[in-house]
Formats: sequence, C-alpha cells, structure tokens
Amino acid sequence: MKQIEGGVCAPKGFKAAGVVANIKKSSTKKDCALIASEVPATVAGMFTKNVMKAPPVVWNAAACLAGKAQAVFVNSGNANAATGERGAEDVCTTAGWVADGLGINAQHVCICSTGVIGVPLPMDRIQNGVSASLKALSENCGSDAAQAIMTTDTVPKERAIEVELSAGTARLGAIAKGSGMIAPNMATMISIITTDAGIDSQALDKALRAAVNASFNCITIDNDMSTSDTVLCFANGASGVQIEADSADCKAFESALQELCVDMAKLLVLDGEGATKFVEIAVEGAQNEDDAKTIARAIANSMLVKTAFFGQDPNWGRIVCAAGYSGVEFDPAQVGLWLDTVQLVHDGAAADYREEDAAAVMKQKEFQVRLRVGNGEGSAVFWTCDLSHDYVSINADYRS
Amino acid sequence: MKQIEGGVCAPKGFKAAGVVANIKKSSTKKDCALIASEVPATVAGMFTKNVMKAPPVVWNAAACLAGKAQAVFVNSGNANAATGERGAEDVCTTAGWVADGLGINAQHVCICSTGVIGVPLPMDRIQNGVSASLKALSENCGSDAAQAIMTTDTVPKERAIEVELSAGTARLGAIAKGSGMIAPNMATMISIITTDAGIDSQALDKALRAAVNASFNCITIDNDMSTSDTVLCFANGASGVQIEADSADCKAFESALQELCVDMAKLLVLDGEGATKFVEIAVEGAQNEDDAKTIARAIANSMLVKTAFFGQDPNWGRIVCAAGYSGVEFDPAQVGLWLDTVQLVHDGAAADYREEDAAAVMKQKEFQVRLRVGNGEGSAVFWTCDLSHDYVSINADYRS
Repeated sequence: MKQIEGGVCAPKGFKAAGVVANIKKSSTKKDCALIASEVPATVAGMFTKNVMKAPPVVWNAAACLAGKAQAVFVNSGNANAATGERGAEDVCTTAGWVADGLGINAQHVCICSTGVIGVPLPMDRIQNGVSASLKALSENCGSDAAQAIMTTDTVPKERAIEVELSAGTARLGAIAKGSGMIAPNMATMISIITTDAGIDSQALDKALRAAVNASFNCITIDNDMSTSDTVLCFANGASGVQIEADSADCKAFESALQELCVDMAKLLVLDGEGATKFVEIAVEGAQNEDDAKTIARAIANSMLVKTAFFGQDPNWGRIVCAAGYSGVEFDPAQVGLWLDTVQLVHDGAAADYREEDAAAVMKQKEFQVRLRVGNGEGSAVFWTCDLSHDYVSINADYRS
Repeated sequence: MKQIEGGVCAPKGFKAAGVVANIKKSSTKKDCALIASEVPATVAGMFTKNVMKAPPVVWNAAACLAGKAQAVFVNSGNANAATGERGAEDVCTTAGWVADGLGINAQHVCICSTGVIGVPLPMDRIQNGVSASLKALSENCGSDAAQAIMTTDTVPKERAIEVELSAGTARLGAIAKGSGMIAPNMATMISIITTDAGIDSQALDKALRAAVNASFNCITIDNDMSTSDTVLCFANGASGVQIEADSADCKAFESALQELCVDMAKLLVLDGEGATKFVEIAVEGAQNEDDAKTIARAIANSMLVKTAFFGQDPNWGRIVCAAGYSGVEFDPAQVGLWLDTVQLVHDGAAADYREEDAAAVMKQKEFQVRLRVGNGEGSAVFWTCDLSHDYVSINADYRS
C-alpha cells in the first residue's frame, strides 16, 4: 500500500471538476464539484442517522440500495436541508441536469449538498454549476473537486493510495470536507471515495461499513450530527482487477479502504473548526469494545476536557470525570491515566509525576490520552480536537 | 407562597456560617460553610450518577439512607474527588471535627466538597475552617454560607419562601453553587435546602426527587456531570407544622419545594460560566414527556446551537438538526419552531418571517425556543445558556 497523487482521479476511469457558481457568498470560491466514472460503477454509501435527513441523503440512499451509480454532484454553501417538498424536487431536477449532460440515467447520479440549513437551493446557480462542471470534467481536476466541497474547512482534503492485489494493482482515492457539526455516527461530513477495483455491491457495502466505523465514526469535533452526513464509494472496475467477496484480495482491499478512511478522518479532526490540538483518546481495560468506545466518546466530547486541551492544562480530573459519567460501570480504584508516556493517575488517585512533564506533553500539537479502567480486554480509540476561542467565533458568526 | 429574606436561615432553628480558610487560592474569599439545625432533622438527598463519585457523596448517601442529620459542612476550592482511600478518611475526620464542635454524632454531619479534582484536602486548613465556622454560626449568616460555596460562580445564590399550610406557616430556604460542569442528571452543582416543616424522610425524599427532576435535572451549561453533584434537604420541624404524607399540605409543600428548586436552577443557568443568554427550550407535540425531554436536552446541549445563541444568530437549522439527532423519531414535515412569538419554521421548512424580527428576539438577554414535533401530548422544558468566548477562557485557565 502506498500513497499516490491525484485524489479521486487517481483511480482509472474517473474524471472530476470543481467550479465557482456563486452559491457561497464569495464569488471566487469553488462551490460545485462533479465526479464521474467513464463506466457505470458499483456504489455503496453510509448516511447520517439524523431524523431531519436532507433530501439528497434520501436520494443517495436509494441509489445505494440499487448498488449502481456513475456520478456524484456536490454543492457547498447550501445544505438543501429542512426545505420541504421543494428540496426533494430540487435534488431530482439537479440529477436530471447532470444525467442529461453525461448521457446517463438520472438514478445513477448521486447528489450532495452542504452548507446552511433551511434555505432553498438557488436553482439558477445550481444549473450554471452543473453546466460549468460538465465542461470542466477532467482527469486532472481531483483537487478542484476537493476545494469545491469545502465549507468552513481551511484546507482541502484529498488522498489516494495504491494497493497490490493478486490480479494486479488497484487504486483508491478520496476527498472529504468537515469541519463543524462533526460527531460520531457518521462524522458530520461528506466524503467521496473512488476506486478502480471491481467489486460487487454487497462486498463493497461491507467493506465501507467496516472502514467508516473504524474511522469517521471515531472522530468528534463538536458532537453535532448533521442532516447531510454522507460517505459514498464508487468502484468502477477500470483497473481490470476484480475482487471476489471474502477472498484474500477482498481483505486487502478492506484494509486499504479502512486506512484511507482513517487518514481522511484524521485530516478532518486536524482541520476541526478552531482546532489547535489533535488528541488521540485511547481507552483500555474495559469489559468490551463497546464500553471502551462509549468512554472514549464521552471524554472526546467533553467541553471541559476540550477547553483544558486548549488551555494546555493537564487537568486530569476532568478526563476521569467524563469517563465516570459515560454510563459505563468501572472500578474507580483501578483507573490509570497517561499523557503520552507520563502517568498522571495510578489506582484512581494522583500518581507521582512532575506537573511540568505533563504540561510539556500538552504543549505539543498532537498527543495521546490513554485511560485504563480495569483489566478487561475491551479497548477503543477516538480522535478529537480542542475547544478554542476560534470555534466560538466561527460558529457565532457563521451566517453573518 | 411568597419570597422572604434569609436564605437557608429563613426557616426557624437553622444557623449558618461562611468563613475564609485559605482553601481557595485567594486569601480573601470565603471557602468553608456550615449549616446546622438546633435539633435533629429529617434529611433527603440526591447525588451525581458519575461512577467517579467523590468520597463526600458516598458519605452523604449513607446519612440520607438513615434519614437523619443535623448539619452540613461544605468546602469550596477542592472537590476531594479521585483522592483514593485518603479522601474517604478525610471526610470522616472532618465530620468528626464538626460533630465534636456541635456535640452531636458524626453520622449526622453531611460533608460536601467542590473545586479541583484529584488533589487531597489540605486538612490543617479544613480544621481551621471547621473551627472558624463553628464560632461564626448565626441565624444571620445565610448569605455568608451562600458565598462560601461558590467556585466560578460570579454571584452567590440564595432564596427563601414561605408557604401557608393548614397547620400554619412553614418556610423553605436554599443556597446553591454552579457554574460549570453543569449537566442534567443532577446539574453539576451543590444545593443545600432547609425547611422548618416537619415531614418524615420517605415523604421528604419523594418531594425532593420530584422537585429536582423538574428543576436541576432540566438545566445544562456544558453537559459535563461532575463527581460531586449533591442536593441535600433538611427538615427540622421547628415551625411546629407537621406534614402528613399524601395530604393536601404535603402537595402544597411539594409544590413549594419544586418552585424553590426551579428558581435556584434558573439562577445557576443565568450565572453559567461565560453565559450571556438564558434560553428556555420548550418542546411540545412529542409522543410522551420522555421523548420531549430527550429532544429538549439535545438542543440545550448542542454546541452549535449555543454558539448561535451567543452570536444572536437565528440559525434555526441548527436547532432542528439537534432535535433530529436526539434519537427520538418524529416526522420532519410536522416540525414548527418559534423564537418567542416569531414563527421561523412551518411544516418542516422556513416559515414566512422577517429575519430582523427573529434577530430582535435573540438580542434579548432571555428568550424562549419553542419546537413542535407533532401532535402528541408529550412536552418538556429545559433551561440552557449560550457558549461564549468567556466559557472557553474560564475553563482553559481554571487551574492556572
């Protein structure tokens, strides 16, 4: 497995575009992306569990049930969420425009929208965005697509990798956007993944589910799950490498997909709104993996823990306190806590450590919090960022 | 029912004290409080559900099981939490000192500690605090006690009310402290309530449970449940008014206790760390009260909703989004949303309203968010504050 260039266009047979259509307030920022396969692809998706699902989410879920799609159009600047009947019609209309341009069926066009909730899509601009995207489609424009899906992200996020399988080399590429409304159970986000491996939709769905659960579902920025969370994975088989379900190649493909998703998930946390720290929360010694994940999530979401990270304050009381209210039972007398290699808590009380050693760990841009809650086999990892003044500024002023 | 002066000393037969013992860093701030009844009192308590319960919580729970106590000593500046075996011994020692001074049994002395987690109590200073408190005990020092239990609170919180019952007049008084680590399932806090009504411990326990569930369990500042949450209610019978369980007087007493607790809960939110807004979240039309409360809690805890409150931005998408991920099922097409009397959402999409009218509501210091999610009978109310720069500053720098 090795990193390669090209993002979503690294796999064979994919083209992409990213254009300016004035859907965002800025007239210079790209806000429409199109990614299209030359041939019909297998598609799998995972979506927000929010009751207030945006119309595009419902549309894409239908495509993923069918298991076939060939393109995805994404606009940023407007989420087309809480837009009633009109929102659903607008998705259908947009898919029709893309389908006409590509000469394919509208049901094979996925649609994603991200941005402000509750405002109908400006359909004249969307139409311009579709036209311009169709014209700009190219094998060299993966980065443009990565830019066009950004909202409060400060950097575009794309990655591609190459994986050697018994039948040859396959490639996987991805773009993703954050950077607020990020919470587990689909990190609030959009990610589009492409691969030139050939794989049936059931096997692709299984691989994507496992990869997302170990990556995008293990990050949190503000514990707010959006109406639009979407991960879509397109496999077009253009490499000629065909993957059989449950084969050794399939396992290798699953690992590659997971590695790519973990990379993208970490990029989202690194670019979390206002984030100045990237922190890994590792919980071990729990009764089982679910318990460990529940504890890790509570710590990762605690506003007091996250402000302490921002303040570079090794205030471990807040960390064990968050573990304590997670809902998981454990014996406080068995608790141990480490910041990287510095042990702060031993048997549930302060260990013998130097405050300056703990503070030095927290001054780093990235560090690990490791919490032991007993002698069980359950462990889990979560990735989170700090809660800074900039998070408040960004979100107090988002629409103004 | 009417408001009266005197706080926890308004009910007959209670004395209080608040003194400086240098447990807080400041050498001028009061940090030890003692409240004592002249005669043994019935006691009821509600405590944090955090697994990492501080030793005082365990001690008080035992007193409440027995149903009798006569005094409570509170120190601020140190939570005596995550302090291992020594923490439990320190509670016992402190109770002994208070008991000796009052000439009562140590088991009848409750102990509360609030402040930093993980640091053993400075027992020499605690001993000085106990001595000074015993000397200062007076019917006029309720306010001193209210001051002494403060941590990041900016104002002391005390209230007293008088209630007319068939057998005569009874009084109830309360003090409370916030103001971070405030979350439902006991707002993270300490409140001491006194009454000169006579009531058996089972009836008092029932009344307190109902009152807390409708007040302190309906507020949130940062969704962080502390290791020390405690509400204690002492009923000493000094008014000569005896309340029989399930009588009309008992109902009137329950209402009075609930009113007092709601008042105190609101004071905590008003003084939430960094809070500039007090917002009531009212959810209606849910299938049942539990569903309504779950939705209200999700909205009240959403960082994005709270930063929008701070930014005075009527970004209603974040509110319906939080409702949508609360875990409760409802029909998005039936959603209605009001800021005070301005309707922003109708049938799940933007209503016809003027942005400036919505903005005007949010410019107020206090306002209501009302969300309708269907035609069910379930409704609930939650109280929350905004998430401001000051919250981040206060908690990034808490220990430094």
